[in-house]
Amino acid sequence: MTEERSRRLSESSRVEAFSDGVFSIAITLLVLELAIPAVRDEFLHDLVDEWVSYIAYLAAFGSIGVLWMGHHTVFSRIRAVDAGLLWRNLVLLLTVSVVPFPTAVIASAFRVGSETDQAAAVVAYAVVGMASGVAWLLLFTYLRVHPTLVDPDTGVHFFRLTEPLVTLVGYGIAGLIGWFISPDIALAIFLVFPLLYVVRVRSAGG
Amino acid sequence: MTEERSRRLSESSRVEAFSDGVFSIAITLLVLELAIPAVRDEFLHDLVDEWVSYIAYLAAFGSIGVLWMGHHTVFSRIRAVDAGLLWRNLVLLLTVSVVPFPTAVIASAFRVGSETDQAAAVVAYAVVGMASGVAWLLLFTYLRVHPTLVDPDTGVHFFRLTEPLVTLVGYGIAGLIGWFISPDIALAIFLVFPLLYVVRVRSAGG
Amino acid sequence: MTEERSRRLSESSRVEAFSDGVFSIAITLLVLELAIPAVRDEFLHDLVDEWVSYIAYLAAFGSIGVLWMGHHTVFSRIRAVDAGLLWRNLVLLLTVSVVPFPTAVIASAFRVGSETDQAAAVVAYAVVGMASGVAWLLLFTYLRVHPTLVDPDTGVHFFRLTEPLVTLVGYGIAGLIGWFISPDIALAIFLVFPLLYVVRVRSAGG
Amino acid sequence: MTEERSRRLSESSRVEAFSDGVFSIAITLLVLELAIPAVRDEFLHDLVDEWVSYIAYLAAFGSIGVLWMGHHTVFSRIRAVDAGLLWRNLVLLLTVSVVPFPTAVIASAFRVGSETDQAAAVVAYAVVGMASGVAWLLLFTYLRVHPTLVDPDTGVHFFRLTEPLVTLVGYGIAGLIGWFISPDIALAIFLVFPLLYVVRVRSAGG
Repeated sequence: MTEERSRRLSESSRVEAFSDGVFSIAITLLVLELAIPAVRDEFLHDLVDEWVSYIAYLAAFGSIGVLWMGHHTVFSRIRAVDAGLLWRNLVLLLTVSVVPFPTAVIASAFRVGSETDQAAAVVAYAVVGMASGVAWLLLFTYLRVHPTLVDPDTGVHFFRLTEPLVTLVGYGIAGLIGWFISPDIALAIFLVFPLLYVVRVRSAGG
Repeated sequence: MTEERSRRLSESSRVEAFSDGVFSIAITLLVLELAIPAVRDEFLHDLVDEWVSYIAYLAAFGSIGVLWMGHHTVFSRIRAVDAGLLWRNLVLLLTVSVVPFPTAVIASAFRVGSETDQAAAVVAYAVVGMASGVAWLLLFTYLRVHPTLVDPDTGVHFFRLTEPLVTLVGYGIAGLIGWFISPDIALAIFLVFPLLYVVRVRSAGG
Repeated sequence: MTEERSRRLSESSRVEAFSDGVFSIAITLLVLELAIPAVRDEFLHDLVDEWVSYIAYLAAFGSIGVLWMGHHTVFSRIRAVDAGLLWRNLVLLLTVSVVPFPTAVIASAFRVGSETDQAAAVVAYAVVGMASGVAWLLLFTYLRVHPTLVDPDTGVHFFRLTEPLVTLVGYGIAGLIGWFISPDIALAIFLVFPLLYVVRVRSAGG
Repeated sequence: MTEERSRRLSESSRVEAFSDGVFSIAITLLVLELAIPAVRDEFLHDLVDEWVSYIAYLAAFGSIGVLWMGHHTVFSRIRAVDAGLLWRNLVLLLTVSVVPFPTAVIASAFRVGSETDQAAAVVAYAVVGMASGVAWLLLFTYLRVHPTLVDPDTGVHFFRLTEPLVTLVGYGIAGLIGWFISPDIALAIFLVFPLLYVVRVRSAGG
């Protein structure tokens, strides 16, 4: 390995710092989308009435939190970074940092929109979820064919494509349900999705 | 301890980086909730008239600052991180990053709302404060039954449940006072709460 | 020095990470205060017409940048952190993270306000600048009487009170000029202030 | 090298942390500029209709991402930091953190503005892109005449002025095309620009 090349495969610490920044900002910006109801004497009622905003907030918070935990796990197995990995990571961060947008769209559509609007909103959210699945697929596929980037103890088989595929298909199904059957069910799936991940980690953790 | 397990108990540095990000963003986002009064010739008067916004801002800033200091102290005693700890930490960060919302609700209710609105707003703030107490309870309880995650010099007795319980009960009482007696008193309690913590730290610091 | 005490005087790295977060967020949030003019055929004219917003943005950006550089310099001389230092640092961060508010107030007042409004706005900015001077005074005074926190090679004389006092008095004078003479002059002072600091650093840097 | 001087040439890690903060915040704040359409029964249509916002978002995201990768590469070659470098870095961060503003201006102008408005908006974006080129030129020129700041293995020839000049000229040409010929073409150039960089890195990476 030449010195120039070893330099380019530089340590992943600054990539993690940048990624942590994007994750933590995206997860914290979500709160800005919680609209403050116009103040009238039914203020408490209006606050409670925004429950869909809160559900969407929790779903998006959980989702970004799960993605961060996945990112944390993956990068703890990476020992070097090259330009191709940086770019795939950037695409992944794009799918993370855009999450506040469909979250706000859902909150807005459920507050004042018709059921058609709500269906459109959950589809928007599902598309972002699917894009996240695709970004993880790109990242994992890249790592599998570049074993020099991976910690030798780990091996490329660690980056199983099953999980990103489940994410991709899962959000796709949720979007279809939201569009053809019921936006409410889709919203419930968005909320439950991150929790499933917790269960899986726990059972795997033993 | 297997190698796989020792890896999962990986160092807490990246968790701290992510948490620091959330804390610092939440505390800085608070400023966005300070509304700029419509510009008329009474601009200075209007600026001063927003004093409740400033009180709420200071209370929330102090509160997040205190929470960060607590987080800093706790994680300096943690030597390893597992999935269960990551999740409890995420719940804790949720209660931190949502703080700008009830802060904005208070500012809005005190600027243009009736006393009923103000009571609802301080209850919303108190609920978030109570949720923070619950999140700390979950974290401390978890650490007490997983001593392998804790620095051996420290011991699990370090994570006393008294403080989170005081937070939980304190915000509960403040909420009740705000709802049944006076929103102003509740707001004063929110402001004083972080200061009490300073006094305690100082006296303990000797 | 007991072990308990040596632990409390823990390394300053996480404090710096949290502070860096607040500085970098505050300096980046400033951009949100740049209002987008309503779109009409005089869009370019309107964009240019917002020049006071841009001046205020540059002044605030330069000011937070200078504060960060000062923070960077000071903490490179600190070897340990205790609760008292954490609190003074938090007060300092408060004066940093609030900067976007008076910046927005200035932009708003100069766009649509009378000269009285503008005077009020520059006074608000000056008050925050003075608060920053006070926060630095508190921090430096604390370090001077707690030499154990300071790098032994440095010595407490490094933390001269002259600079915070100049900041305090300088923003005070700018505020008085803005209120009694001309808001425009005050704004110019706000813009030049950080540049003066650059000149001083350069000449000192040799 | 005196001890005082060696201290001032302190390690670049905290500068990178602060810079990473600004980059990650700026890239994540972009999402706040994605406007949520008013909710009516044509919600999905309206969402899709905002495609120019999405293009502008992608262009700005890619552009900040590329800038971060460049910053990452450059600072991995820097071994020490002095005041002059700090200032040039601050100017560079200014051109990064201001990007959300022209991005929002473009989104706004293409949503509701005339072609003249759109031309003005792409010029604003191009000006920021050119400012970024100038900031890189300042930084590289400084590094070339201060070889003590640079990693000895690297040598100042590493900081070729070609790239910043291409950025400067490229955005200049895009702005002229946007103003005199077609805003749409300018927007397409803004989107393609970061992609070109990817191709170049890949071919160089071998």
